Amino acid sequence: MSKYWNNRAKKITPYTPGEQPKDRKFIKLNTNENPYPPSPKVIEAIKNAVNGDLKLYPDPSSTVFREAAAARFGVKPENVFAGNGSDEVLAFAFGAYFNTEAEPLLFPDITYSFYPVYAGLWDIPFRTIPLREDLSINCDDYKTVRGGVNGVIFPNPNAPTGIPVPLADILSLAEYLEAKGRALVVDEAYIAFGAESAVPHIGKHPNLLTVHTLSKSASLAGLRFGFAIGSEELIEGLYRIKDSFNSYPIDRLALAGAAAAIGDTTYYEWINRRVMATRERTEQYLRSLGCEVLPSAANFLFVKAPEISGGDFFMKLRERGILVRHFNKERIKDYLRISIGTDEEMDIFLAACGEIFTRENLT
Amino acid sequence: MSKYWNNRAKKITPYTPGEQPKDRKFIKLNTNENPYPPSPKVIEAIKNAVNGDLKLYPDPSSTVFREAAAARFGVKPENVFAGNGSDEVLAFAFGAYFNTEAEPLLFPDITYSFYPVYAGLWDIPFRTIPLREDLSINCDDYKTVRGGVNGVIFPNPNAPTGIPVPLADILSLAEYLEAKGRALVVDEAYIAFGAESAVPHIGKHPNLLTVHTLSKSASLAGLRFGFAIGSEELIEGLYRIKDSFNSYPIDRLALAGAAAAIGDTTYYEWINRRVMATRERTEQYLRSLGCEVLPSAANFLFVKAPEISGGDFFMKLRERGILVRHFNKERIKDYLRISIGTDEEMDIFLAACGEIFTRENLT
Repeated sequence: MSKYWNNRAKKITPYTPGEQPKDRKFIKLNTNENPYPPSPKVIEAIKNAVNGDLKLYPDPSSTVFREAAAARFGVKPENVFAGNGSDEVLAFAFGAYFNTEAEPLLFPDITYSFYPVYAGLWDIPFRTIPLREDLSINCDDYKTVRGGVNGVIFPNPNAPTGIPVPLADILSLAEYLEAKGRALVVDEAYIAFGAESAVPHIGKHPNLLTVHTLSKSASLAGLRFGFAIGSEELIEGLYRIKDSFNSYPIDRLALAGAAAAIGDTTYYEWINRRVMATRERTEQYLRSLGCEVLPSAANFLFVKAPEISGGDFFMKLRERGILVRHFNKERIKDYLRISIGTDEEMDIFLAACGEIFTRENLT
Repeated sequence: MSKYWNNRAKKITPYTPGEQPKDRKFIKLNTNENPYPPSPKVIEAIKNAVNGDLKLYPDPSSTVFREAAAARFGVKPENVFAGNGSDEVLAFAFGAYFNTEAEPLLFPDITYSFYPVYAGLWDIPFRTIPLREDLSINCDDYKTVRGGVNGVIFPNPNAPTGIPVPLADILSLAEYLEAKGRALVVDEAYIAFGAESAVPHIGKHPNLLTVHTLSKSASLAGLRFGFAIGSEELIEGLYRIKDSFNSYPIDRLALAGAAAAIGDTTYYEWINRRVMATRERTEQYLRSLGCEVLPSAANFLFVKAPEISGGDFFMKLRERGILVRHFNKERIKDYLRISIGTDEEMDIFLAACGEIFTRENLT
């Protein structure tokens, strides 16, 4: 604690990102990166931009990306917001829609652990809504909260469970919240891996914002690019916060790469189908080893091993050079989140699991 | 106004960045970019990074840059914060040090116009302190404000005047504020063009933060990279806000380019000496044309033309394909801010000035 910090800096509990190892070569299944490289068109677009005018400021409103995304999703550029990773987009959404000194913002008890951090940053009261017993989101639970609601946010599919939320339930909740003048933010970071997107329905729901990232589905975690799609009024709200924070959050290289990525659906659908096929194979094998595996529509699996705690399983994998993510939190502390790597990486992981479970059974 | 916006989004007045023309080819002297390209070492470092692991998240704490900056400035990596442009660093500084519901934050009445916007974003009360009659900052005025102070921020040299603040005055103000437990943020965006940096003194002043950018002095406005140097406790405060906002604000390409830029002092001192020489030549010629030119230690000049309003001067330059910046604000509305371009660009600008002033005198 420093006396030069204000009350916010003293009070907040910052987010802890997954480990980014610098030395030892790990099989990295801990931060949900795509195991395949970005599209060659992205690399080419960035290389062209490096030779461009890096001495000049970029376009503050990322027009080329917004136009490319509008064409891809069948919306207008005014329905698209671009930010420095979907984390920045989410930070702006919390800053634009949810009030301090108001009814609580609602989100699941088990979800992306950055949400309570954003709420702390902007001083937004919040209340968590328990997942069902099977760890799925029940949208109806968000309609029956007593004492009003400031808005709702959750990911579809949810993280770290990977379980998708039925689109009909999301649209029904959007309608419910619209009548109350509140926003519904659906974080579609993992939407490319099997769940149904709400994007085609934003025209009917002025209070529905979908948030997206190029980190997972477009293999560009290292480029930092996220975006949102929603009504013009919701998008304008995000731009008001962004223009009060940083005029130019997106650099010329990221902008060029992102515009190329959003246009190359052929390549990305191909690699993401591979990820889903590997996920299914991994899931089946883990079940055959006696694991409980939640039904995932994401590029990761949420897995409970037989007869070994989540913490022990995590450490035994780490000793074998395999990094995964463990959340030391009630309800999910016996699970690990396993990002889907290449087939080769998952074979090594599964072999390690077989070895760990056998040894456990012997002791 | 949207009913889905919160009170903040409704209340704030976002910043308006200088125009970034997309079509007509202008001589661009309006946003203080460096007219010379980035170091070839920067381009090479970025090209190597493009071929690297863009699919993986970057290092969330920008270690290679912080180590390179520490070596360059004779501090520790823990004294360095890296952000997505100095605008983001400033946004975090406002978010970390200055309280809401407290005494006012102080900054000059004529200064970087993003400061009141940040204050609005974070709901920080502020009070502006008038510049002297000659448009220079008087640090003593910040010590005699009644009713307490939440902290002080100003640029050195100040913008858009370009006038430097004597280092001794800054250090004396830092000492005064330290006794009150308040931070002094000195925005050194333009420090490479002639003013004296406070960086060598941060070890003696735990409350003194200096903020820097690679946009101007390192010709990298298009890469978005800023940083701060200060005591470990001030830097930790910035990281607390950053880690509550966006874990990875700096992408792999920007990180590689920035680390290369901070190491190549030879190239950058050479181009910035050229900018300063061009500034002096431009200043002398403008004076010979009858202009009032403030004494600048930045890569721009603040200029009042004879017998023509600032608005008219701006439009007549624009008609001739020359973009500069006009601030329609009391005290400075008769001035234009002219970024220093290449010698060739400034020759065209000066020829246009000669023509504009002659025609004015004839009408």
